[in-house]
Amino acid sequence: MKALLLKMIEDRMDEMIAIRRHLHQFPELSFAEVETAAYIKNFYAGKPVQIDTISERHGFVVTINPGKSERVLALRADFDALPMQELVESSFKSQHDGIMHACGHDLHTAALMIAADSLITLRDQLPITIKIIHQHAEETPPGGAVDFMNSGLLDDVTRIYGAHVMPDEKLGTIRYAKASMMAGNAAITVDITGLGGHGASPHLANDAIVAASQFVVASQSIVSRRIDPQKPAVITIGSFEGKGADNVIQEHVHLALSTRYFEESVEKSLESELEALCHGIAAMYKVEVQMNHLGGYPALVNHPEVVSKIIPVLKKAAFLDTVEAIEPVPFSEDFATYLKKIPGAFLFVGSSATPSPYFLHNPKFEADERVLIMLAQTMIELTIAYINEP
Amino acid sequence: MKALLLKMIEDRMDEMIAIRRHLHQFPELSFAEVETAAYIKNFYAGKPVQIDTISERHGFVVTINPGKSERVLALRADFDALPMQELVESSFKSQHDGIMHACGHDLHTAALMIAADSLITLRDQLPITIKIIHQHAEETPPGGAVDFMNSGLLDDVTRIYGAHVMPDEKLGTIRYAKASMMAGNAAITVDITGLGGHGASPHLANDAIVAASQFVVASQSIVSRRIDPQKPAVITIGSFEGKGADNVIQEHVHLALSTRYFEESVEKSLESELEALCHGIAAMYKVEVQMNHLGGYPALVNHPEVVSKIIPVLKKAAFLDTVEAIEPVPFSEDFATYLKKIPGAFLFVGSSATPSPYFLHNPKFEADERVLIMLAQTMIELTIAYINEP
Amino acid sequence: MKALLLKMIEDRMDEMIAIRRHLHQFPELSFAEVETAAYIKNFYAGKPVQIDTISERHGFVVTINPGKSERVLALRADFDALPMQELVESSFKSQHDGIMHACGHDLHTAALMIAADSLITLRDQLPITIKIIHQHAEETPPGGAVDFMNSGLLDDVTRIYGAHVMPDEKLGTIRYAKASMMAGNAAITVDITGLGGHGASPHLANDAIVAASQFVVASQSIVSRRIDPQKPAVITIGSFEGKGADNVIQEHVHLALSTRYFEESVEKSLESELEALCHGIAAMYKVEVQMNHLGGYPALVNHPEVVSKIIPVLKKAAFLDTVEAIEPVPFSEDFATYLKKIPGAFLFVGSSATPSPYFLHNPKFEADERVLIMLAQTMIELTIAYINEP
Amino acid sequence: MKALLLKMIEDRMDEMIAIRRHLHQFPELSFAEVETAAYIKNFYAGKPVQIDTISERHGFVVTINPGKSERVLALRADFDALPMQELVESSFKSQHDGIMHACGHDLHTAALMIAADSLITLRDQLPITIKIIHQHAEETPPGGAVDFMNSGLLDDVTRIYGAHVMPDEKLGTIRYAKASMMAGNAAITVDITGLGGHGASPHLANDAIVAASQFVVASQSIVSRRIDPQKPAVITIGSFEGKGADNVIQEHVHLALSTRYFEESVEKSLESELEALCHGIAAMYKVEVQMNHLGGYPALVNHPEVVSKIIPVLKKAAFLDTVEAIEPVPFSEDFATYLKKIPGAFLFVGSSATPSPYFLHNPKFEADERVLIMLAQTMIELTIAYINEP
Repeated sequence: MKALLLKMIEDRMDEMIAIRRHLHQFPELSFAEVETAAYIKNFYAGKPVQIDTISERHGFVVTINPGKSERVLALRADFDALPMQELVESSFKSQHDGIMHACGHDLHTAALMIAADSLITLRDQLPITIKIIHQHAEETPPGGAVDFMNSGLLDDVTRIYGAHVMPDEKLGTIRYAKASMMAGNAAITVDITGLGGHGASPHLANDAIVAASQFVVASQSIVSRRIDPQKPAVITIGSFEGKGADNVIQEHVHLALSTRYFEESVEKSLESELEALCHGIAAMYKVEVQMNHLGGYPALVNHPEVVSKIIPVLKKAAFLDTVEAIEPVPFSEDFATYLKKIPGAFLFVGSSATPSPYFLHNPKFEADERVLIMLAQTMIELTIAYINEP
Repeated sequence: MKALLLKMIEDRMDEMIAIRRHLHQFPELSFAEVETAAYIKNFYAGKPVQIDTISERHGFVVTINPGKSERVLALRADFDALPMQELVESSFKSQHDGIMHACGHDLHTAALMIAADSLITLRDQLPITIKIIHQHAEETPPGGAVDFMNSGLLDDVTRIYGAHVMPDEKLGTIRYAKASMMAGNAAITVDITGLGGHGASPHLANDAIVAASQFVVASQSIVSRRIDPQKPAVITIGSFEGKGADNVIQEHVHLALSTRYFEESVEKSLESELEALCHGIAAMYKVEVQMNHLGGYPALVNHPEVVSKIIPVLKKAAFLDTVEAIEPVPFSEDFATYLKKIPGAFLFVGSSATPSPYFLHNPKFEADERVLIMLAQTMIELTIAYINEP
Repeated sequence: MKALLLKMIEDRMDEMIAIRRHLHQFPELSFAEVETAAYIKNFYAGKPVQIDTISERHGFVVTINPGKSERVLALRADFDALPMQELVESSFKSQHDGIMHACGHDLHTAALMIAADSLITLRDQLPITIKIIHQHAEETPPGGAVDFMNSGLLDDVTRIYGAHVMPDEKLGTIRYAKASMMAGNAAITVDITGLGGHGASPHLANDAIVAASQFVVASQSIVSRRIDPQKPAVITIGSFEGKGADNVIQEHVHLALSTRYFEESVEKSLESELEALCHGIAAMYKVEVQMNHLGGYPALVNHPEVVSKIIPVLKKAAFLDTVEAIEPVPFSEDFATYLKKIPGAFLFVGSSATPSPYFLHNPKFEADERVLIMLAQTMIELTIAYINEP
Repeated sequence: MKALLLKMIEDRMDEMIAIRRHLHQFPELSFAEVETAAYIKNFYAGKPVQIDTISERHGFVVTINPGKSERVLALRADFDALPMQELVESSFKSQHDGIMHACGHDLHTAALMIAADSLITLRDQLPITIKIIHQHAEETPPGGAVDFMNSGLLDDVTRIYGAHVMPDEKLGTIRYAKASMMAGNAAITVDITGLGGHGASPHLANDAIVAASQFVVASQSIVSRRIDPQKPAVITIGSFEGKGADNVIQEHVHLALSTRYFEESVEKSLESELEALCHGIAAMYKVEVQMNHLGGYPALVNHPEVVSKIIPVLKKAAFLDTVEAIEPVPFSEDFATYLKKIPGAFLFVGSSATPSPYFLHNPKFEADERVLIMLAQTMIELTIAYINEP
């Protein structure tokens, strides 16, 4: 059966390319993927599956063999695009000004659609229930994954897999981490309010720029002293808004910062230390300090026991040349949200199109479209492996 | 002769008011006082004086008795207005949108015109040369005074006086300081340039926000530790421009700051310490730090030996109730530039119009117009006193 | 009567010198002035005065004409010495190892004794009550003055005067300030306690050196931003005890600091800002911060209305050449404590012995002993002036 | 032959214990291991080996089959002890007050002596040259390893192995890292010299405590911003010496700090950033800043190609239960010095004596003496494996 499924995918390469290019031409931003969702749903129209859409969102679940088994496998692809102007010239260049599939979600989705269709075709031979997740809004926190988790539609899922194209890895390569694989992040704002006044009389005002600068300086010791040196952590204060006249004391400064981490314990420490810092600055300078957590994604941590089951399988897959572990990468991905509850794994699938490829989120990002086969066949391998687990 | 001069001024009260109200209705900004200067020059047309205009500026000198003596007295009034919308309702409200004589320069000028005219009338009885300075651009650094000093027109001046209305002092009051009277200030910008980058990889970038925050924090110890505690000094960093995305490391921060001091030694210390700080931050963070001095006014320091001569005279003046010393005030005035080279003094002349007067630079600023007499008669007293000096 | 009194003092010059030299040879430290007090009391033995000693201290009050009037004048001299080894060779060099009258208290006391004795002699002609304060412990906070104020012995005093020799002013000079004259100070300790640990694992410890360093850095903005720039203020952190091994994280740091100010409002601001800083550091770093106020002296502020009465009198005194106002000096003196409640003034009396005199608290300090006459006669002048006040 | 060698070690268990207990009873500090070295040398007396002692040190090399091959294997054990009072009661408790083998070097040495003797016995069957390193001074930087590397005695060594007992791992366990295994460290002092002075006049002094505090605060951003977040790094400033009087401005502060890292690139970055910080503080505060590198150990990095050869061999060894990779540990070891030049590896050998064992450097440290066999047999396995390498 596996051989048949893999063959079915190979045979539909042109169709996958066509779907991918359609999606690429008509990209839509996170939470606004109206046409994209309609296009994908149309693909499943009339097929013997159950379709459940997330309330007030565009993401949906396609269930194959609903209720057939207590073991429920979920396969996920995301379908939102990025707010950037495509700089690649091609016959399928983005038709939507300022929007581009620069993160490969078009590839993920096209591959999963064909993989799903193959599984639908052979559904009677599959002893398990399979849920195909077509996810909206991966790019924008709080992210679509949290909507799916809240929907109840995945409550019965016992295993989940996802994959991402990786432009700096060769075609035929899969990269994975045993556990920590991608950074978590959080976007946080800090508003510091003192009292404005004339620059000649600092004692009659309360200088928010001095307080905010101390916040920035003092925050350095969170990473340097409060976090286990062997656990990566970053606090970047990317924005310090305190523009004004040179001789007028600033009343208000707005800081925007983002944190990165690979472990939940580090996330919690960063947040609690930042809160302590806010209290400290407020007490020290008698200013008002308001910290807001705008959300973010957890660290993506593969389930080691799942990884140890699938890697030997993938290493034997004929369509792959290299299956190797990597160190965690500092980028984020909302598949992490699924993995906090559901056993599973996330993989990077090499898609390099050129010797010096442009990376994800670059307006010149391109992929070798043969990665579509790798993506789809990987999903098939993972499905069969899960079925075969004792 | 003094009695006669004082009387002449009293008799021309209505004329002074008319001039003042005309100037008030048609205010012009610093360096753009075209009509104002023309109006004042017209007043002197046909009178037995020599008029010299500052090259490429609107300010000019009216010389009475040119060449008559080696003792040359200068009397100065300024004539530029401020970029603010007047909020006082009156028959002579500003006709120029967004421009207002909110600093009393209309009063200074009207009074000096009539005082000058009185002196012109009695010029033959005056044993000295008198230079009437009608100054442009007092409000905007580098200020008009420096133009006059550079012009050579004041090279022979041996004494100089100026005065400013003071809305929170009663009519009939003169306030002065023996030496330090008004703060000097300087506007300075500091540009800090690191290297931008992704918020997840601080080591590949060089965070200008951290460096600039350290600049702000470290600068506090200049005032607290490097300046004599008994000599007032202020560094206000009024602007910190570092707006950006929360997860992108800032490449550049622009700081704008202003300093205040009452002594040249403090001014020099503040500047040299700020320069040291720039070098320190550059070395410490391997960032580029560019400091620019945008200019400012020196501290206004009266000449004590002149003050000790004129105060007893003023204390005896019948039109004044109170002549008292004050502590230096934290505001600035470009008359300071004259006093760095020419012996003289600057005085505050009470002009309070209401029990709770609005201060200078306030859009509701008003003056009791009787202060015109005080201003003009004070100039007469100072002139006669100088003539009488042994 | 004044002439007679002044003459009496001149005639007893040798006796004053003898007393001064005796005190100089046998100096005693603050709060331990047993023999000194006994020696002075012995001087008054059998004289028609009332002597009241401060409970558990060595200072005492000698009252002349007790109960005679509601106007009660106090004249004060201090009698404690300093813990330093005298380096001046003389026939009356200190016989007590490591103790020296290097602050001139021996001169103050000898002069006041003879002045008092003269007043005692003519007591019947004096219409007022006079209290001679022989004060212990001026050098060591909390100081003897507070003991006198708490004793109730000065509750009826309506005027108080004191004087200090000034080695860098010429003999015949008196220097005074109209109001603020000497700095107040406070000694404060701050103990910061984190959690010790291995230098390789900062997250398992809590680094007191980082927290204490931030305390030092952040404290700079108190003087630079929270205090009126025209009101002198200093915070010196003179001690930072955090010695340890290079790879062991410090659990505890002890800071010792001193503050200076000329106004009570500044004293209060410094203290409340330091408290806020302690709370801020505690909250920010989750360390324990304990601040202790070890005491100090208030700023010495003469009463302007008293100064304006006595200066004209002193300016006419034949034995004085120069009576001039000065800017406040940054040193402290516990006479300040009396002036917080009792109208009066403190004066500096020139005593320079050489062209390049050593200053107070220097082991080579010397005084021209003729200053004894100036001190005593000044007290007489002040007494008569008070009697003559309308 | 391997089986025979392993058997020879088992048979000499009692002898190993006796040697270990002798060494344990007579521990000596780093660089002072006179009797220890003599005792070990005596063991080799009369045996067919070449012995070369490090000039002016106590460490020496025992060469088996000198000159026999171009492949030269080095096996190393250290023999110095620690300055601590033993708190374990036993028949072989330390007889030297305040000195203790609390780091297991007695075990390392006893095991290597017997392993060496077995190899000497079968030397004719061994096709390679073997150098037994009995190293002095592992505990105290700059460490004995650097002496051996400088001696030239190891210039021909082509492979090196070492091992350390690990009290929190079970007997029968070996732990290793593929590459980074133990932290490097460096001890650094920073002397900051300003200008002392009276606490009331900061502008006449130059406060070293403020400058040093800024050093501490600013140094936090080295770890937080200048080092790759995925590469552990620590700067601990363990000592801040700035004790003084509260009202005297400190002229000098001495800081002592230690750094930790797992990669040479991080070591270099930390050092160059600290140097930049010194320059920055010097420029900013016009103080003198002197940084001294007191030495330390490099990060211990196993050679991955060596690890990949020996781990499969050890996994098959009958006397071992568990051979597993670990994350790097934050402690240091001067075996790192050898590995910077010579291919090889360092291993941790489980020695837990109790369920809750005391760790290395604890005065209650104990080991299950059966670890002696594990240590010696591991050396035999590694030797045979090297011989068998193609």
